[in-house]
Amino acid sequence: MITSTAFEKFRRSYQPRYPKSLRSLSNTEAQEIAVMESSIDAEQKEMIKKLFPATYGQPALKMVVNEGKKEEKAMTIAVVLSGGPAPGGHNVICGICDGLFSVNASSKVYGFLGGASGILDDKCIELNLDIIERYRNTGGFDLLGSGRTKIETPEQCERCQKVLEDKGVDVLVIIGGDDSNTNAALLAEYFKEKNSKVRVLGVPKTIDGDLKNDYVEISFGFYTATRLYAELIGNIGRDALSTRKYYHFIRLMGRSASRLTLEVALLTRPNITLISEEIQSMKKTLAEVIDEMVKVIVDRADKGFDFGLVLIPEGLIEFIPEMKLLIQELNKVLGENKEFFDTLSSFTERSEYANRHLSKDASYVFSNLPVDIQRQLLMDRDPHGNVQVSKIETEKLLIDLIEAKLKELRAKGRYKGKFSCQTHFLGYEGRCAAPTNFDADYTYSLGLNVVALSLAGVTGYMSVIKNLVKTNRDEWEAYGIPLSAMMNMEVRNGKQVPVIKKSLVSLEEKPFQELLRHRQNWAQNNLYRFAEPIQYLGDGSVCDSVSPTLLLENDLMIE
Amino acid sequence: MITSTAFEKFRRSYQPRYPKSLRSLSNTEAQEIAVMESSIDAEQKEMIKKLFPATYGQPALKMVVNEGKKEEKAMTIAVVLSGGPAPGGHNVICGICDGLFSVNASSKVYGFLGGASGILDDKCIELNLDIIERYRNTGGFDLLGSGRTKIETPEQCERCQKVLEDKGVDVLVIIGGDDSNTNAALLAEYFKEKNSKVRVLGVPKTIDGDLKNDYVEISFGFYTATRLYAELIGNIGRDALSTRKYYHFIRLMGRSASRLTLEVALLTRPNITLISEEIQSMKKTLAEVIDEMVKVIVDRADKGFDFGLVLIPEGLIEFIPEMKLLIQELNKVLGENKEFFDTLSSFTERSEYANRHLSKDASYVFSNLPVDIQRQLLMDRDPHGNVQVSKIETEKLLIDLIEAKLKELRAKGRYKGKFSCQTHFLGYEGRCAAPTNFDADYTYSLGLNVVALSLAGVTGYMSVIKNLVKTNRDEWEAYGIPLSAMMNMEVRNGKQVPVIKKSLVSLEEKPFQELLRHRQNWAQNNLYRFAEPIQYLGDGSVCDSVSPTLLLENDLMIE
Repeated sequence: MITSTAFEKFRRSYQPRYPKSLRSLSNTEAQEIAVMESSIDAEQKEMIKKLFPATYGQPALKMVVNEGKKEEKAMTIAVVLSGGPAPGGHNVICGICDGLFSVNASSKVYGFLGGASGILDDKCIELNLDIIERYRNTGGFDLLGSGRTKIETPEQCERCQKVLEDKGVDVLVIIGGDDSNTNAALLAEYFKEKNSKVRVLGVPKTIDGDLKNDYVEISFGFYTATRLYAELIGNIGRDALSTRKYYHFIRLMGRSASRLTLEVALLTRPNITLISEEIQSMKKTLAEVIDEMVKVIVDRADKGFDFGLVLIPEGLIEFIPEMKLLIQELNKVLGENKEFFDTLSSFTERSEYANRHLSKDASYVFSNLPVDIQRQLLMDRDPHGNVQVSKIETEKLLIDLIEAKLKELRAKGRYKGKFSCQTHFLGYEGRCAAPTNFDADYTYSLGLNVVALSLAGVTGYMSVIKNLVKTNRDEWEAYGIPLSAMMNMEVRNGKQVPVIKKSLVSLEEKPFQELLRHRQNWAQNNLYRFAEPIQYLGDGSVCDSVSPTLLLENDLMIE
Repeated sequence: MITSTAFEKFRRSYQPRYPKSLRSLSNTEAQEIAVMESSIDAEQKEMIKKLFPATYGQPALKMVVNEGKKEEKAMTIAVVLSGGPAPGGHNVICGICDGLFSVNASSKVYGFLGGASGILDDKCIELNLDIIERYRNTGGFDLLGSGRTKIETPEQCERCQKVLEDKGVDVLVIIGGDDSNTNAALLAEYFKEKNSKVRVLGVPKTIDGDLKNDYVEISFGFYTATRLYAELIGNIGRDALSTRKYYHFIRLMGRSASRLTLEVALLTRPNITLISEEIQSMKKTLAEVIDEMVKVIVDRADKGFDFGLVLIPEGLIEFIPEMKLLIQELNKVLGENKEFFDTLSSFTERSEYANRHLSKDASYVFSNLPVDIQRQLLMDRDPHGNVQVSKIETEKLLIDLIEAKLKELRAKGRYKGKFSCQTHFLGYEGRCAAPTNFDADYTYSLGLNVVALSLAGVTGYMSVIKNLVKTNRDEWEAYGIPLSAMMNMEVRNGKQVPVIKKSLVSLEEKPFQELLRHRQNWAQNNLYRFAEPIQYLGDGSVCDSVSPTLLLENDLMIE
């Protein structure tokens, strides 16, 4: 039995707020509205339509109050938590249970254990109000556990159908990121084609913030996680300013989009923020990135500031064109001749081999990397012989290259500072944080809305809440959006497949423009925004704050 | 100008609570009481007495209320923040300013900038209520900055005396750890011998928690920092339990004592907690430490738990007798022949050289280390040729050795689990956190008490608050304790010197016994105590919690 802290006991009694239209679910009606015109081209649209014959072209739904109270039959909903945890997952489940039982107390909620593999293995628990009581407003996915298994093959789909039908499940709810929601759409299509009664709904989760589009303003968990990282970085900034001796290089979780890094930058105002998408779209070389960083460090040293804060998105390395090329070539070279390569045990032998087989460009990039990084690229590979990109400590790579450059400048008398560094990687510290009021309310609303969509009898939809920037939750609005309306076609493992598009940072968007506007000033001065620990109790001005990304997108000022 | 967050604005209005005896400082009287009999031997006592002829043997002082209101003359106090930041430093200064100005509004408070070097360079600012307003109840040392300079040589002492006297300083307050307070005692002695009017007082600061003795129940900042690390580790534990795929190896700040790690363990209940002092006193070898860890991992794998939480104190490596020996020998070997050794550029050459010169025992230890660690030991050395112990990533060393052992066991069919790891180092994230109510109250009280001791006209004392376990601050008591009463003699750089003794974890003490009592259970099961983010607003049951170390030492239960 896990110990509850005083905080958890107190927090349990927090009553999440939610949209008016979800106040009494028997009175909620799903009103058809038109979906927005998708921005993908006609050819892609046609492909998606073909791949989703049964579920493509459904209308969007807006939840509204309809006073004519209905009797609702008992229903069975099954829930799966998919992928990395994000703050608020438990509250989605609490919203589903509270909503469903309030409509008909004979309803059932199952929770599959350990992600989608729980369906295939038929491992689940039946949830009730007693069980969920301890999980109200808590972080983590530990009520059910999570997993990364995807139900993709026809055999898996068939098995899944059998398990769900045997249990009498009416609706399967997949709480996950872009890939898991793509999967939800494929399953919904499969069940409908097979005339199964099982419907499928998705819920938008990810701390990375890249499940974001015309319909989804922000994924749940993003704001809590970024606030927690921002608190820690605020503390580190205060430390840098107190001791004036270290540059702190902080790598932040997020393999694809730099959304999380951008949001944290707006919350903390560091001296340097690297945004992968900018570097890629400007086609910057590693040397150019280093030169820009060195310029800030040298300028600061001239002012007597031999300290600073640097934010680095986890996925950076693959967004630098030359590094991407190198990694691709290495994977090819090391993968094709894996058996022979594995017989080479020393770094020197491997390095010679790699250099012989790389293109001139890739070889040049490789040989200019610090030896430690060369070693990492050649020695640590995954079972398929691929470079383990997530294991590359990008912050150390940058530091090594900056040190070399500063040494040159020092020799020429153009740099007189000290450059001492501390490195950090923030990720696991925040994925299971207790959800802020915002995320507690948002996820509970998403859960209630899942029930409304279930009552509406639809499949292949995502539960969506809009107007999230409003602190008065009466102004929030609940929608059901067809998952297939969020799709585009992408090449994965050499094949065109339909996927929900990841939202990368665009150089035109307001949050990035805000960073641009302040970047120079933040680089040269010490304007860190300090620790703002997430508060859950007390005044709304402290507890009900909103993501700067949302504020900026709504043309509101950030503090 | 630094931006204030909504939280900071709100938190500024928090009114710290403090002992009754400090309520009106003009009515505070310092009553002489006997100091406790020191536990050091007669010979040491005699040496300390000789080294502190002017300040040794002073009585302890207890602050009590004396209703006869006195007029107090204006006074000048100068403050220095020394060493690594700890939550609450700003509130010590706020307490000093509020207390001193309330007694006589013509008083002055100077803050020296960047630690003790600020005195030598005569860099200071005059503080007033406007300036400190923004720093009330905030973390960090950024109001003045901090530094590690010590005033030790006769020239430095002389310079220091001149600067302070020129400014008309009556009392110099040094806010710092054991070394800085030792320094305060030496300065007090120096000034008294020189018949200077400048008096010196110390304030006990350190997140490491090792400034702790018969008089000092706990140093300030320790509880806030440990709570913040515990929150993050609670989140990581919840993550481990949600995804069930990683062992998280978490190294925690604290080069000497494992106090911080022990406190965090009591707050989080991890599967494995290494306590340096235990390993040293049991004379465990690295292989034994690894075997014990492997046993837990194998037992857990048998239960299907291929995940877990492991806490490691930063200073571990130097507490393992064989590693200590190795490091000492390496420093000798590499230091004595630094010039020749520096000409060897490859790892192979250096490794051969080291092995030729190490003793048989040390060479055996060295050759059994993972190559990456061997490389770290030989390649990264400080300017004096010494091994950089703080740069050794102990958590990676342990993981490498555990992996090797598990591979053996797997080959023998005795281990069937998966062992994937994530590593973390927590330190800088917490040193500047906003002080908890406990630390905000404690530090403000320490500051008020500095004024009471200043009014009492004493020198060479530490400001001490006792009964800290009480949530009703009326029950807290303020004392002045002679710094020389906390001294013992230790060998530093081959010389016997007087120092305030660091409080290492003892195997008999109650907090360690509590860990022992639960260790087996915590290892085998998943009893993590989850995220308890520090709350500053709202109900006392959540905001006024107390350090488990303090609770246990007072025979109170921990939650």
